[in-house]
Amino acid sequence: MKKLFAEFIGTLWLVLGGCGSAVLAAGFPELGIGFVGVSFAFGLTVVTMAYAIGHISGCHLNPAVSVGLWIGGRFDRKDLVPYIIAQVLGGLAGAGILYLIATGKAGVDIGGFASNGYGEASPGGYSMMAALVTETVMTFFFLMVILGSTDSKAPAGFAGLAIGLALVLIHLISIPVTNTSVNPARSTSQALFAGGIYLQQLWLFWIAPIIGAILAGITYKYISKE
Amino acid sequence: MKKLFAEFIGTLWLVLGGCGSAVLAAGFPELGIGFVGVSFAFGLTVVTMAYAIGHISGCHLNPAVSVGLWIGGRFDRKDLVPYIIAQVLGGLAGAGILYLIATGKAGVDIGGFASNGYGEASPGGYSMMAALVTETVMTFFFLMVILGSTDSKAPAGFAGLAIGLALVLIHLISIPVTNTSVNPARSTSQALFAGGIYLQQLWLFWIAPIIGAILAGITYKYISKE
Amino acid sequence: MKKLFAEFIGTLWLVLGGCGSAVLAAGFPELGIGFVGVSFAFGLTVVTMAYAIGHISGCHLNPAVSVGLWIGGRFDRKDLVPYIIAQVLGGLAGAGILYLIATGKAGVDIGGFASNGYGEASPGGYSMMAALVTETVMTFFFLMVILGSTDSKAPAGFAGLAIGLALVLIHLISIPVTNTSVNPARSTSQALFAGGIYLQQLWLFWIAPIIGAILAGITYKYISKE
Amino acid sequence: MKKLFAEFIGTLWLVLGGCGSAVLAAGFPELGIGFVGVSFAFGLTVVTMAYAIGHISGCHLNPAVSVGLWIGGRFDRKDLVPYIIAQVLGGLAGAGILYLIATGKAGVDIGGFASNGYGEASPGGYSMMAALVTETVMTFFFLMVILGSTDSKAPAGFAGLAIGLALVLIHLISIPVTNTSVNPARSTSQALFAGGIYLQQLWLFWIAPIIGAILAGITYKYISKE
Repeated sequence: MKKLFAEFIGTLWLVLGGCGSAVLAAGFPELGIGFVGVSFAFGLTVVTMAYAIGHISGCHLNPAVSVGLWIGGRFDRKDLVPYIIAQVLGGLAGAGILYLIATGKAGVDIGGFASNGYGEASPGGYSMMAALVTETVMTFFFLMVILGSTDSKAPAGFAGLAIGLALVLIHLISIPVTNTSVNPARSTSQALFAGGIYLQQLWLFWIAPIIGAILAGITYKYISKE
Repeated sequence: MKKLFAEFIGTLWLVLGGCGSAVLAAGFPELGIGFVGVSFAFGLTVVTMAYAIGHISGCHLNPAVSVGLWIGGRFDRKDLVPYIIAQVLGGLAGAGILYLIATGKAGVDIGGFASNGYGEASPGGYSMMAALVTETVMTFFFLMVILGSTDSKAPAGFAGLAIGLALVLIHLISIPVTNTSVNPARSTSQALFAGGIYLQQLWLFWIAPIIGAILAGITYKYISKE
Repeated sequence: MKKLFAEFIGTLWLVLGGCGSAVLAAGFPELGIGFVGVSFAFGLTVVTMAYAIGHISGCHLNPAVSVGLWIGGRFDRKDLVPYIIAQVLGGLAGAGILYLIATGKAGVDIGGFASNGYGEASPGGYSMMAALVTETVMTFFFLMVILGSTDSKAPAGFAGLAIGLALVLIHLISIPVTNTSVNPARSTSQALFAGGIYLQQLWLFWIAPIIGAILAGITYKYISKE
Repeated sequence: MKKLFAEFIGTLWLVLGGCGSAVLAAGFPELGIGFVGVSFAFGLTVVTMAYAIGHISGCHLNPAVSVGLWIGGRFDRKDLVPYIIAQVLGGLAGAGILYLIATGKAGVDIGGFASNGYGEASPGGYSMMAALVTETVMTFFFLMVILGSTDSKAPAGFAGLAIGLALVLIHLISIPVTNTSVNPARSTSQALFAGGIYLQQLWLFWIAPIIGAILAGITYKYISKE
């Protein structure tokens, strides 16, 4: 139960921090943080939580991560569904707090609320196929870094930095394509608040990350076998 | 006494570095550092001091941090008031040095002097309620990272990075709302120089961070109990 | 074979991540990541892979690195050619995936596709001689950092950070001159897609990095001798 | 002799990397790296060299650092002058290579060549007094971080990161005031190429950093005494 509460808190922070930086600060006139700032914000939610709760729950904060760790033989199947539920609820709580803050000024319109999308809902107008490839490949590499850096043969203690910086990198590459998900919980929370086209496209941000994570679980098992 | 001097020096650096980057460099024509640069500056004051004086005083640099560590069972109550006094004095010294530098050019107006505020004093015009929520929640997570990453079960040595990068992240999210405090000492020093509305609103930047810190102390104790 | 597959995967990530950030996100209207974002993206591909596959293949991801490590006495000559082949193939796969994504929107022109160049193909119009000096010197220092930080006398575990941050730094300096290579595999993959002048100039981005790497191998052996 | 060669190489890298990013990339049209990029470049020269040559020469790269470490009781006085000579020569070599690259395009004017200055030579027009205060205080804190993070009581291995990130922070704060020195070798190399007013003002960038370093050596000895 304490593990699930830790996952809830951590995913809340990921959504509030990552999507919050995008909604509140990305386009602030003249001094805004842009995609570089949003990329660091998402990654730093993971760096900070990895060191804060990694020793409690493993700090997945992401259904695709839990699936990839299960396939990679690092996570018990019986914890999979409870972890995913805690992550989705945490994401929703984070989005709720963000909604409360973001609407606390006159004349605000939350717009896409940092949701993920493709086609007309893609920041740069990229197609569904480009989005599918992007989310699958990005999540594949995210899980490769997670599986590799937490391997007992990797230097101890650095995994939190490597994994969080991987998420920085993934955002530096792919915000223009899909607004970057690689995390179904983060996509779900924002789509539920933004509604419309974002809810209709939500399926892709569950399917693609999970496929990428499964492929990484299989691949890492192969290349790390002695 | 040496611990208090270390806290004084460290908080001086936090205010001089963080607020200094905002006052001197954020809006420099064309090449200025913007909110991304200010966010890193605040966070790096903590990263650098954590490794410089962490082994001397614990490197709190922040009354809310001292309160949160006390509630979390990591800090002796008898040191609480002296630490807070040293932090506020250090902040004032940092603001004084910054004032000396910032006014060392013709026709300068210090304006808000990087003070915190809400309503008309909020960079983005956010309400008092949005400010209260933001400061409470941000300090809550700041303390969660501090308590978690300094837990004996977390990887040794990385806490300074995790905590400093948490402060980077908090600024990336919330500068537009309150100019980001999560630290009553930092708010006090700037408000005393800026005066007016910033002094009238100072209460919020003591109340909200301390509430957030107390909630985190209680929460972390719960989730880390075995 | 598993080492070669790891090098393939890692170099794929370096090209997809580094060149991908440049092609997709650098110049995104108003919010784009600019040279700072691209610099971090290239460096973070190395930070993340160093912790993910460093314990499998050593994580060279770059023919000049393999040559420099061989000259420095850290890498077996018999693995040199297979590693270089795996790196070039990985780079090509990364560029292929990037091509697929980048062309997944209407009216796109891949242009230089983040290729390296000099003279009229240099982002800032720098001469062939400036490009030769830049690529040789930058690769020299890249290998000095690699050889030094992986020395048994350096602090254990930090090499991945130091080496990846060296690549961030090298890009912060030299994107305007050559678009920054220091890696013949990364130059080859992009030139094959962009064609024309970029293919004609590809020789420089094999010659200069390899000369720089050889000089570093010799120099580090000298200064680290006891 | 090998220590001196390491200091030469390291200071060359500091000047070539830090000043190089400023001269070549800071103001590149639209995509330039700005003060944030230059700040990271300077700091990363130190992070990278700390892990590359720290175990050889201690990686001072700066006469003020050598003086501060001597006063703090960490560096042998007999090595002081040779180290300073090697640092100044390394800086000159770095500036020479940068000159070669920067002039390798048509119609270039090196201008201030990233020199330090005050009054009309200050980027933001700050007075001599503001410059004196800034350089003294910034070097004071730089040495506090160096002395503290390399203390045997600080976490092992992290000093290179803490010290390099301190230099990032110092640049985020003070580029507008003096273009940031805290390093007489870096000031000397650029002033010799830029000439004129920069040479006339060079005295300040020897005096102020050395005073700051001496004060830090004394202060750290006091607060770390048990």
